[in-house]
Amino acid sequence: MAFKLTFLGTGDSAQVPVYNCYCPACELARQNASFVRKPCSVLLHLDGQQWIIDSGRMDLSELFPAPSLHGILQTHYHADHAQGLLHLRWGVNLRLPVWGPDDPVDFADLYKHPGILDFSQPWEEFETRKIQNVTITAVPLNHSRPCLGYVIEKDQFCLAYLTDTVGLPERTYQWLKQKKMNYCIVDCSMPPMPTTPRNHNDVTTALSMCEGLHIDKLLFTHIGHELDEWLMQHERDLPAHVFIAYDGMVITV
Amino acid sequence: MAFKLTFLGTGDSAQVPVYNCYCPACELARQNASFVRKPCSVLLHLDGQQWIIDSGRMDLSELFPAPSLHGILQTHYHADHAQGLLHLRWGVNLRLPVWGPDDPVDFADLYKHPGILDFSQPWEEFETRKIQNVTITAVPLNHSRPCLGYVIEKDQFCLAYLTDTVGLPERTYQWLKQKKMNYCIVDCSMPPMPTTPRNHNDVTTALSMCEGLHIDKLLFTHIGHELDEWLMQHERDLPAHVFIAYDGMVITV
Repeated sequence: MAFKLTFLGTGDSAQVPVYNCYCPACELARQNASFVRKPCSVLLHLDGQQWIIDSGRMDLSELFPAPSLHGILQTHYHADHAQGLLHLRWGVNLRLPVWGPDDPVDFADLYKHPGILDFSQPWEEFETRKIQNVTITAVPLNHSRPCLGYVIEKDQFCLAYLTDTVGLPERTYQWLKQKKMNYCIVDCSMPPMPTTPRNHNDVTTALSMCEGLHIDKLLFTHIGHELDEWLMQHERDLPAHVFIAYDGMVITV
Repeated sequence: MAFKLTFLGTGDSAQVPVYNCYCPACELARQNASFVRKPCSVLLHLDGQQWIIDSGRMDLSELFPAPSLHGILQTHYHADHAQGLLHLRWGVNLRLPVWGPDDPVDFADLYKHPGILDFSQPWEEFETRKIQNVTITAVPLNHSRPCLGYVIEKDQFCLAYLTDTVGLPERTYQWLKQKKMNYCIVDCSMPPMPTTPRNHNDVTTALSMCEGLHIDKLLFTHIGHELDEWLMQHERDLPAHVFIAYDGMVITV
């Protein structure tokens, strides 16, 4: 099959390096660009079409000269996942589908002035759509705004992209439990915390939310600088099937 | 005196080139980066401090590694003038003054989650503040959101930065009329239009709003691709004291 996923960004809202932070992770990212983490997003190659999940990168118009981008799967409308739309919308002679959750709260004035963006087809929970011969299903997540994960399937291949979230809603967990996932990419923003965080997984919650699911490779994304610093000491302690995503990382099948 | 102004961006909200536009101005900008127009903003060097007017550039953290940026003069909170704050706010160990209009409507969730940004000192109309030995006055403009121009004075030098606006409120016009301006930088987004536009100057309105003011050099900024195309034929027809700003242009005194 012609499936390819490229990580356009694997950072949290602050990105790495964090402005004015001089922790070891931020210093390393300043010294070596391969440790930089931009806003969390991926590029999907789906049978010849290019779609992105999330639009937090601010250079989308340069990354994807028209007509190379077919559409956007939006997990939610927080700034670090949607800010690239603020400029991209002012293109011309084009209509770009943005399929996201049905969130009544506008992000800045995007709904009011959508420009070339077409927000008219929000997902229902567990709705399935076809892009070429690839099946996409939107699954609800736990976040401070309406937020969807995406499950991408073709033939025997299955990949889930689950961010931003802290744990999983029970209905999503039960739905995912029926799947055999080759890859599961999840929000893991923080090192293990004394208590479960409110809007994002720490390492503990990211691992526990996947217990009982059938996952070949579990990838962490949406990584903050404190987790990067923690990983410098502890990456080897993670289970063998867990990997840390990085900007530019590619999955091909 | 130690005054220097650098144009960080001279484009309108769509910037130049416009996404998916193949007009002569957009094609030229793609071929030659010196014709690119990024989000409208300037850098001010004020007696050793660096302040920017507007924060639409999305690479502020790279342009101004801390502590090189002292503060932000915000004309208003439309996306193309404020979107860079969405990321910059997540810096650490720093408090960055953002002096703008008293606009009760939040831009996305900036006021709710200001991070390192300090919005606590909005301007009153015609209020004057000192930055080092430079005097800054905020003057109201005509726009669809509360919007301020800034007049910068030191000794005999005077520079006004007036964008976004269509024409001038009478009280601002009368206030400016008393000044002898070395430079007046104004919103001029469009070529001459059959009727006066609603939120931005076209060439006709930009020129007429400055009639009767004492201006040595009048600079146009916030330039859209249609104006750039018009200028290819008509720049020579403009009055001799009118200049077109470009990204990277520097004014020193």
